[in-house]
Amino acid sequence: MAEHGGDLDRAMARFGGSDHDWIDLSTGINRRPWPMVPPPDGAWRRLPTAQDHAQLMAAARAAWGVHPGLAGVALAGAQGAIQMIPFLRPPGCARVLAPTYNEHAANLAACGWRVAECATLAALQGADLAVVVNPNNPDGQTHSPEALHALAGEVGLLVVDESFGDAAPALSLLPEDGTALVLRSFGKFWGLAGLRLGFAFGPPALVGSLRAMAGPWPVSGAAIAAGVAALPDRDWADATRQQLAFDAVRADGLALRAGWDLAGGTTLFRLYDTGDGAVAQERLARHHIWSRIFPHSPRWLRLGLPGPEEEWKRLTVALSGAPSG
Amino acid sequence: MAEHGGDLDRAMARFGGSDHDWIDLSTGINRRPWPMVPPPDGAWRRLPTAQDHAQLMAAARAAWGVHPGLAGVALAGAQGAIQMIPFLRPPGCARVLAPTYNEHAANLAACGWRVAECATLAALQGADLAVVVNPNNPDGQTHSPEALHALAGEVGLLVVDESFGDAAPALSLLPEDGTALVLRSFGKFWGLAGLRLGFAFGPPALVGSLRAMAGPWPVSGAAIAAGVAALPDRDWADATRQQLAFDAVRADGLALRAGWDLAGGTTLFRLYDTGDGAVAQERLARHHIWSRIFPHSPRWLRLGLPGPEEEWKRLTVALSGAPSG
Repeated sequence: MAEHGGDLDRAMARFGGSDHDWIDLSTGINRRPWPMVPPPDGAWRRLPTAQDHAQLMAAARAAWGVHPGLAGVALAGAQGAIQMIPFLRPPGCARVLAPTYNEHAANLAACGWRVAECATLAALQGADLAVVVNPNNPDGQTHSPEALHALAGEVGLLVVDESFGDAAPALSLLPEDGTALVLRSFGKFWGLAGLRLGFAFGPPALVGSLRAMAGPWPVSGAAIAAGVAALPDRDWADATRQQLAFDAVRADGLALRAGWDLAGGTTLFRLYDTGDGAVAQERLARHHIWSRIFPHSPRWLRLGLPGPEEEWKRLTVALSGAPSG
Repeated sequence: MAEHGGDLDRAMARFGGSDHDWIDLSTGINRRPWPMVPPPDGAWRRLPTAQDHAQLMAAARAAWGVHPGLAGVALAGAQGAIQMIPFLRPPGCARVLAPTYNEHAANLAACGWRVAECATLAALQGADLAVVVNPNNPDGQTHSPEALHALAGEVGLLVVDESFGDAAPALSLLPEDGTALVLRSFGKFWGLAGLRLGFAFGPPALVGSLRAMAGPWPVSGAAIAAGVAALPDRDWADATRQQLAFDAVRADGLALRAGWDLAGGTTLFRLYDTGDGAVAQERLARHHIWSRIFPHSPRWLRLGLPGPEEEWKRLTVALSGAPSG
């Protein structure tokens, strides 16, 4: 299985400590989550109904201003869509704008697609299936809706993964009609990744195929209840966007003083050029702060943003001390 | 989409009332659920880890006495496995022991399999893929592990859906090694269908394919927490099996006095020959009790078992009144 952030198991195996000792900054999951309320008893007990799904989709459409020409489906995270995308078309030539989230290329290749990783949007042209993560993980690279709409006409199927789109709403393809398949995550921005909730929007026939593959009950009653309550909470979303922007600048200040350079990121995670990612990861890990490094770019370290003030204090100490032990 | 129990939306559209007015007996979901405790905060927030999955699988293996030669994977309900089974082999000839849960044939057909519904185990022989639900939904038909092990040698791939297996543990294939793919449900017997948790067990290569298709996070943190806590609770499971057996006899008594004949079932649901299923369904629906009828067998009505005593009272009244209005 591909490596991922959130693998605190590995951190504990290498550096000791238990769950409660660690601050997990190895993901882009917001550590100032929407205040989850346990769902009503019925959400545990009964199967979600068509009405439950309709309410959830209405909340998602309103939150993201989804164009009425696009169909949508709720899934077990954006990952739920990534698992099914290889089956939407007969395997052919897929191109993925890279480096990026490793599950896109891995799943396509596992299902018989010939997968090439490309460095520019232009290089994706002509592919049977192209994948762009916007904004990109881990480097935060962004593309305009215009550029992506144009690209959609030059490939068989364009997949735009907007998993970190809530940090940069102006980039979203969702407010306009189009042919791309657009993925959204709920867990990252709302900080509730354990719920397993995400969405795919696109042309009705394409989304119909995803819906058929996902079956009647792909998401839990708790995920539906949380989505229906949290997605319309615009005050929380606006305040969170501001807080995350502030936090990103704060993290950059600590990193720069530690001798790292900003290499990119979104306001849900930062990417630093640390000179040696493995050394930088170990430096943080000695303070029980977990981060993410990448085999393809050994100088990089990706860092989520701390939440409560005591987490900021620990990060400050970790980055103020001697650079290596 | 195929029709299902649990579609209380349709009941309310036809017969009025709101969620709280209805007793939903249209499914085989236990209405005396395991007492769910809201999961710890971290279960909402963080991605489930490999360690979380390992704990869940250990609990499932212990609960069902799964043979160590079989591999396993947790999914979003047994339905999660049913969605992926068509992709385990190149489409060919599939045979489903019928009548049964309609999603097996529907998903295979949607993915290009030629699907035949067969009336006997012997008629499944020679299929590239064969499906047996044991005990069967809705008629409760059962097959011995010996008969199923023998059948597994006569088909390309045998799928045994033990979604209602916790009502009849002696029938399970899981305690022995074998080549069949065996599905289990958590939501039905434990009464927590909204969690979306189920399992597939079988030969490691086959389960590896399912795991790859399901991806790293197919089930929610809440589902994992519930499974880890509930699956080892043998006292609850034993008491529940006894209670359900008692309740099944109690429901049969009411049904027989109403002029219906027992046509089959498990201790999670009963199947009655009512003469006219649509009339019988309407009779119950006027008391806001929802049930399931079947296009293929117009005399049948399937009834889940009430939970709290006030539900039993309402069923008693509904079945004591004039047979039609």
